[in-house]
Amino acid sequence: MTASIDPHDPWAEVAPGSRRILEAALTAFADRGYHGASTRDIAATAGMSPAAVYAHHRTKADLLFAISRAGHQHVLAVCERALEGETTPVSRVRALTHDYCAWHARHHLLARVVQYELRALSPEHRSRIVELRSRTERLFRQEVQAGMAAGAFRADEVDNLTLAILSLGIDVSRWYTPGGDRTPVGIGRYYAGLVLTMLGAGQNTASPRA
Amino acid sequence: MTASIDPHDPWAEVAPGSRRILEAALTAFADRGYHGASTRDIAATAGMSPAAVYAHHRTKADLLFAISRAGHQHVLAVCERALEGETTPVSRVRALTHDYCAWHARHHLLARVVQYELRALSPEHRSRIVELRSRTERLFRQEVQAGMAAGAFRADEVDNLTLAILSLGIDVSRWYTPGGDRTPVGIGRYYAGLVLTMLGAGQNTASPRA
Repeated sequence: MTASIDPHDPWAEVAPGSRRILEAALTAFADRGYHGASTRDIAATAGMSPAAVYAHHRTKADLLFAISRAGHQHVLAVCERALEGETTPVSRVRALTHDYCAWHARHHLLARVVQYELRALSPEHRSRIVELRSRTERLFRQEVQAGMAAGAFRADEVDNLTLAILSLGIDVSRWYTPGGDRTPVGIGRYYAGLVLTMLGAGQNTASPRA
Repeated sequence: MTASIDPHDPWAEVAPGSRRILEAALTAFADRGYHGASTRDIAATAGMSPAAVYAHHRTKADLLFAISRAGHQHVLAVCERALEGETTPVSRVRALTHDYCAWHARHHLLARVVQYELRALSPEHRSRIVELRSRTERLFRQEVQAGMAAGAFRADEVDNLTLAILSLGIDVSRWYTPGGDRTPVGIGRYYAGLVLTMLGAGQNTASPRA
């Protein structure tokens, strides 16, 4: 499954009719927040009647869950794929950080909704998303820990470093602006180097500017 | 002015009647986002009539601006105060990062509204907030640059490092939960060490756990 992931398309596994609605809901949530966006607005953006929207997703809460699930599944698959073929602790953390940070730039609107609207999910939806989310966190934790165990990183404090790495990646979706000096791949490269420096594995040199 | 700043009270310079409204508006914005919160909700939370709220702040946009200005002024004053008496590049960056990160934990709801609702500000309000915000950014940039010029930091890339430091601090307000293992002061200490490691000035050891 991860072998066929398209890193540019988080909606690849969604049916076309549903995709148009999810993209419209994403735009509305990113623009006005979950609570500030109405199903009526979403339908208008999708060029559909509210009834047609309801045929796919019964409630606004279902739309948020569908977006959140698609986003979390996509970033998890991107991270799993990043590790394929990487065999050293340094190259594994580099690849993981690179693709995680690039994802948060490339899909910055999706990332914002996925990362900043967790509290708006219903308790049942939230527990399913937290489970998915913890799988991505675990990938980072495992790689940081493995590198420490192998003596490749001078740092300790696995949990705090994992949190800091994820934090840098997530915050990219807040500040990133398309068309600026910084590109998704440049950001990925820069943060991969910076994270290795944080881990005591080398000095960062690459620039995030195109 | 910075000498008299209370790091625990961002509302110290606000009139008591206005303070109650701003705190109610902050709760509503942090909970439902700017677009999802109504002035009616805010008045109810403050225990006031909508008319009494309007007597202090004409519109919801004014409330967001007042909160955003108070928050940005407070964090700027906290950062300016952090530098007082610090004379070496390492101690200045440590103090600045410590207090900036601790602020984003201690005032995490205020920080979320201040950092994540910039797009909801009117263009005129936004330009005034951006000016205030850039003064805090400049403090970090100057200290990073001064440390590099003095040979205290092995890193280069002033802009990217400044962005990464601010990013780590801002994201604290997203993930921080009061009453957890991590305390504002512990977070400040840990990130100060981590940032010095990022800058090539030493290895991080302090733990953010109480």
